[in-house]
Amino acid sequence: MLLSRFFLPTLKETPAEAQIVSHRLMLRAGMVRQSSAGIYSWLPLGFKVLKKIEQIVREEQDAAGCQELLMPTIQPAELWRESGRYEDYGKEMLRIKDRHERDMLFGPTNEELITDIFRKEVKSYRQLPKLLYHIQWKFRDEVRPRFGVMRGREFLMKDSYSFDLDKAGAVRAYNKMFVAYLRTFARMGLKAIPMAADTGPIGGDLSHEFIILAETGESQVYCHRDLVEKDWLGERIDYEADLQPIVDRFTRLYAATDEKHDATQATKLGEALVSARGIEVGHIFYFGTKYSEPLGAVVQGPNGENITVEMGSYGIGVSRLVGAIIEAHHDDKGIIWPESVAPFAVGLVNLKSGDADCDRVAGDLYAKLSANSVAVLYDDRDERAGVKFADMDLIGLPWQLVVGPKGVKAGQVELKNRKSGERQELAVESALARLLG
Amino acid sequence: MLLSRFFLPTLKETPAEAQIVSHRLMLRAGMVRQSSAGIYSWLPLGFKVLKKIEQIVREEQDAAGCQELLMPTIQPAELWRESGRYEDYGKEMLRIKDRHERDMLFGPTNEELITDIFRKEVKSYRQLPKLLYHIQWKFRDEVRPRFGVMRGREFLMKDSYSFDLDKAGAVRAYNKMFVAYLRTFARMGLKAIPMAADTGPIGGDLSHEFIILAETGESQVYCHRDLVEKDWLGERIDYEADLQPIVDRFTRLYAATDEKHDATQATKLGEALVSARGIEVGHIFYFGTKYSEPLGAVVQGPNGENITVEMGSYGIGVSRLVGAIIEAHHDDKGIIWPESVAPFAVGLVNLKSGDADCDRVAGDLYAKLSANSVAVLYDDRDERAGVKFADMDLIGLPWQLVVGPKGVKAGQVELKNRKSGERQELAVESALARLLG
Repeated sequence: MLLSRFFLPTLKETPAEAQIVSHRLMLRAGMVRQSSAGIYSWLPLGFKVLKKIEQIVREEQDAAGCQELLMPTIQPAELWRESGRYEDYGKEMLRIKDRHERDMLFGPTNEELITDIFRKEVKSYRQLPKLLYHIQWKFRDEVRPRFGVMRGREFLMKDSYSFDLDKAGAVRAYNKMFVAYLRTFARMGLKAIPMAADTGPIGGDLSHEFIILAETGESQVYCHRDLVEKDWLGERIDYEADLQPIVDRFTRLYAATDEKHDATQATKLGEALVSARGIEVGHIFYFGTKYSEPLGAVVQGPNGENITVEMGSYGIGVSRLVGAIIEAHHDDKGIIWPESVAPFAVGLVNLKSGDADCDRVAGDLYAKLSANSVAVLYDDRDERAGVKFADMDLIGLPWQLVVGPKGVKAGQVELKNRKSGERQELAVESALARLLG
Repeated sequence: MLLSRFFLPTLKETPAEAQIVSHRLMLRAGMVRQSSAGIYSWLPLGFKVLKKIEQIVREEQDAAGCQELLMPTIQPAELWRESGRYEDYGKEMLRIKDRHERDMLFGPTNEELITDIFRKEVKSYRQLPKLLYHIQWKFRDEVRPRFGVMRGREFLMKDSYSFDLDKAGAVRAYNKMFVAYLRTFARMGLKAIPMAADTGPIGGDLSHEFIILAETGESQVYCHRDLVEKDWLGERIDYEADLQPIVDRFTRLYAATDEKHDATQATKLGEALVSARGIEVGHIFYFGTKYSEPLGAVVQGPNGENITVEMGSYGIGVSRLVGAIIEAHHDDKGIIWPESVAPFAVGLVNLKSGDADCDRVAGDLYAKLSANSVAVLYDDRDERAGVKFADMDLIGLPWQLVVGPKGVKAGQVELKNRKSGERQELAVESALARLLG
């Protein structure tokens, strides 16, 4: 992509309304723009990151045997009256009347709707277990939306739902999602710690939040120091095997959100206790028959008996992750994207656009990298070097490849790693080889 | 994917509410389920097709130099008051009040919002032209939703917007989209004929609808016979070149929707006139300054003068295309997917699940095809052959690979082409080679 054509409205000044670093940087890097309180448009750079994150979430859900479908944003109120949550949910639920005065709502979550689909289609124990998910925009009408996409009103969420014959089956599904979540966040360069959590309006008695430690976190969390330093999963997972040992490796150490925190543990752990601010990026629930019972999600068992299915639900805040990753990966110059979610792999900087030699070398690098499926943002603008470097640091691509008139005469370019700041003068071919590596 | 695990609730009976073949087949093939009038959940099979179509649309937009972003579903009413469309739009617009009693709406289209983004960020003629698109769920509160996803209330649309300095530039953008649309639909196995069209609530004076001829079409259309038989574009397009000659090749022959039909042409064309029912799958508009004027989308020209930008918008009904493709590709047994949008490439039928030899051969084929990235749906269910064949024909995968006890003894399997109905007995290795082609 040529930067001269790319729709990338970066800002030099920090917008006054942004209180936390991810919000500031997302605005300055031209990733998002607010259209009304807590509702954002994702400009091309932000959209690319959002899609990368969504794809990692999708791949790990698929790997865990979860099947993707897509439920609509607008739901009928009747379903929520059946579960008893229509009144419970309060003003956070965006209630709508359609032209025929029917009560509708913009889904804040989908337990009711997925249970409705299930009860109409699944009738026999032989069709279980089922593990289904979708990635869809949700709406929660926060009274005071803030922190950019971290606490917006319209947000993208991945939510999965499990259906099992008994509690043991439901716990197997829970463990699959637990492990899939560890892998998902690790792939994005995040240390997300599973912590015992309150179940809130979803309900149930077993729940973990996946929490990133960050000063700007919305809530206080507590955990054993070893969890912070724990090495995350790189291994390949067999999702058909018993995953309890992996789950136990994490849950045997103390970790709890504020609501679940046990003060006696604090005393017991002493120096081993970490007390910090945390950002929630995922939340998983086992809630048994809370929805299947009132909605009548019942299958026939092997002996003809009726079995009310055991359910769980599992959410990841996809759009929120964009902000959370920035909170975890930035410096005072801007964002530092982990390679797995970077909008482009390489930022190619032509220090003297219009100079025949620079244009030729940079154009050639751009063509060769692009032909090899390396995503390159080529700054071909007629701008000062300082502006180009500042923009590149701000948008945080993992590699910067700098073509300048002096280097070009010597057949050299500079390769800079955004994260380490390390710079190397390399022959053009060597730089290319390194990036094609 | 193992069919025994796949969430695929096929139906033997035709649901009474479905009036047209695509709606009937989408319900019977377990692709969608209605959650309320005109609002559907996409089950895994339908979701896969939807994603394939979306991806073709995306690739052709990108190839034409259009940049993807994503605007939210919920928009502020003020923007629509600025353009004057808030009252115009009538009851089809889903109007919403949020918890602070602010007027919001679920976007039926995005001219206002994209113009708002543009006017805040683009200030100089040097930043033009711009061609931006998004693929997002829209809502139009149809008084009588029907025909399944063909006329739903919540639907997925790709909408692009062009911004140019003058009419000539806007026509260049229009032509890019015109050609990109021809390619997009051709890749899906559709003959979509561009026809002079009315501009309706979008406005402007140049517009084409892309129409598929089908008996179940919603409107009457008229065109020169040669357009129906015209060979569609296979060639590579240089979107920087002058595309007017390609556009002219299509527009010099008569083609018009009912609203634009000129009865004198009917007489002139005589036998060459085709009068048929048509399904709209795309609609493109040039509307000049209709939105940029009231919203003040103005850039500074080379001499410091203010230039109100010239705009166009370009829509493709992504979810509607799923239905339209079925209308064009089916027989009395079910759907016949073009390979480019098929949810799986191959349906592998094990005629005797539980038989050691059949299980081994089928399992081996499944593993080898999957390892080579061929998407296979493996019917490993304990069901009668008749049920398996009927389901495979219904869901319409391009190839059926049948493993039966008699064939297996002779080292043979049967390969059936869903479209032609042609069957071939082949050695296992030959069948594999054919599908890995």
